[in-house]
Amino acid sequence: MELQPSVIFAIEIIGTIAFASSGAMVAVRKKLDLFGIIVLGVITAVGGGMLRDILIGNIPPNMFRNPVYVLAAFLTVLVLFMLFRFWPSLLGSRYMESYERIMNILDAIGLGAFTVIGIDTGVEAGYGNYHFLIIFLGVITGIGGGILRDIMAGETPYVLKKHIYACASIAGACLYAGLLEVSNSDSAMIVSALLVVAIRILASHFRWDLPTV
Amino acid sequence: MELQPSVIFAIEIIGTIAFASSGAMVAVRKKLDLFGIIVLGVITAVGGGMLRDILIGNIPPNMFRNPVYVLAAFLTVLVLFMLFRFWPSLLGSRYMESYERIMNILDAIGLGAFTVIGIDTGVEAGYGNYHFLIIFLGVITGIGGGILRDIMAGETPYVLKKHIYACASIAGACLYAGLLEVSNSDSAMIVSALLVVAIRILASHFRWDLPTV
Amino acid sequence: MELQPSVIFAIEIIGTIAFASSGAMVAVRKKLDLFGIIVLGVITAVGGGMLRDILIGNIPPNMFRNPVYVLAAFLTVLVLFMLFRFWPSLLGSRYMESYERIMNILDAIGLGAFTVIGIDTGVEAGYGNYHFLIIFLGVITGIGGGILRDIMAGETPYVLKKHIYACASIAGACLYAGLLEVSNSDSAMIVSALLVVAIRILASHFRWDLPTV
Repeated sequence: MELQPSVIFAIEIIGTIAFASSGAMVAVRKKLDLFGIIVLGVITAVGGGMLRDILIGNIPPNMFRNPVYVLAAFLTVLVLFMLFRFWPSLLGSRYMESYERIMNILDAIGLGAFTVIGIDTGVEAGYGNYHFLIIFLGVITGIGGGILRDIMAGETPYVLKKHIYACASIAGACLYAGLLEVSNSDSAMIVSALLVVAIRILASHFRWDLPTV
Repeated sequence: MELQPSVIFAIEIIGTIAFASSGAMVAVRKKLDLFGIIVLGVITAVGGGMLRDILIGNIPPNMFRNPVYVLAAFLTVLVLFMLFRFWPSLLGSRYMESYERIMNILDAIGLGAFTVIGIDTGVEAGYGNYHFLIIFLGVITGIGGGILRDIMAGETPYVLKKHIYACASIAGACLYAGLLEVSNSDSAMIVSALLVVAIRILASHFRWDLPTV
Repeated sequence: MELQPSVIFAIEIIGTIAFASSGAMVAVRKKLDLFGIIVLGVITAVGGGMLRDILIGNIPPNMFRNPVYVLAAFLTVLVLFMLFRFWPSLLGSRYMESYERIMNILDAIGLGAFTVIGIDTGVEAGYGNYHFLIIFLGVITGIGGGILRDIMAGETPYVLKKHIYACASIAGACLYAGLLEVSNSDSAMIVSALLVVAIRILASHFRWDLPTV
């Protein structure tokens, strides 16, 4: 099975939009102004990839060499801001519920896509044999933006509490890193990404939880 | 119009002192001890440049290759600490008001200087054609230290709330990046830095605000 | 006096275990779940070295090239989690007190070892003449993990309040950097590390404090 670059790009943009939206919503709840909303939205969308690139010396990080993702995140945040500003009743309306549900799915797709893309980036950088590293790169690409968002918003990172979010990324990353040992086909990428999406959606649907002390 | 290196250096030191002072004041309000005050003061002064250097692979960051700025920040914090320790009535005295007013102006000068210097650093590193990158480098050099200060102090970064602070840096950065396309004269640098200073001071004087949702 | 690599390694592992334990305890107090406990435990143990490696372009950071430390931290956290989960009365029991006392000593040993190792890493990277840099590298290797732990846990970094913790590392780092100018023997390393351990233990025993404003 072959993936068109255009397909991968489309999926990346979907994830970027979903992540930017989640960052913007946190900023709105924090009553931040337009600038704060833009910063949290953009950093949530591209922050994970930036951390990944810094860790493997991919300098300057891809978000700067290829600003289309920053632009997509910026426009997403701008549209959301306009909507909520000129149609405040939207927040809290029943539309929000469907919106959150759709975004939850797009967010899952983004998590899956960013996870496998993070691993590919590590492999292309020549670290294919550092299994722990490439798995970490996949996970940090998937969840790093959300961590930066929460740290900047002054909250305990969401993933530390809604762990399953990260576990989905970790599971897919481990699967992909393993499959890469036997085949480098796009199918390996797709299956791994789908595993992330599946765990992520099932977990939020069935409210899976990890044990606490 | 030509700028003597000594002039640029003097302006950098002014900014360093103002930034270090703002970091120290946050630490004092947080009731941190001498060490905490030094750390927040120094990180506010040199943290932005450190982030910039990491993003473009300027390793080790300039603050380590050229510790004079760290030293200036350190001495600033030490003097402030002595003053407040042996003359506590100073805090809350009417002198503080004039002090804050002066520091506010020096801080604006620092923001303008660091913004254009950040862009120059990016251009010298060979990224002159990455417009988004060099603008980002200018802004992160200007506001990155304050962001690190607030994250370490456990507060929502000031710039996310007092956004205009960042917008001044962004405006100057965009102007300078644009002017660099047509001329590389010092005048371009000066005009851009002055724009930052002007917006920053006018904004805090007229309490300009960005819209919120 | 000669140090076997195996001895250094053993001391590193001791420090890793103690640091991971301190991270896990913070996570337990924060009521984080298994994932959060693992993340805070591991980042406390290896985060300082990661920051050090990023600052000197040691890419990818040693924690990825040599994951044994991550593994040691992971296992430490896992054992602690099991203990507290299946023997909850342990928390708050009188055993905790002795446990904390032992961990406090191991933590001091780790701080001393990581501080001198951080300096050696900087010297091996060819920065022996950047005295401020290598001292900073030693200190960030020693206290950086705890800073990341506290930032992620949404608390004001411990070192900003329990400063003496950092001062012990700074004192040992300055001593080692100075001794390296005259001799590169292991004795210099050992004496400096012991100074850190001594200050750290005496400080927590006699509750030494730095002045506040």
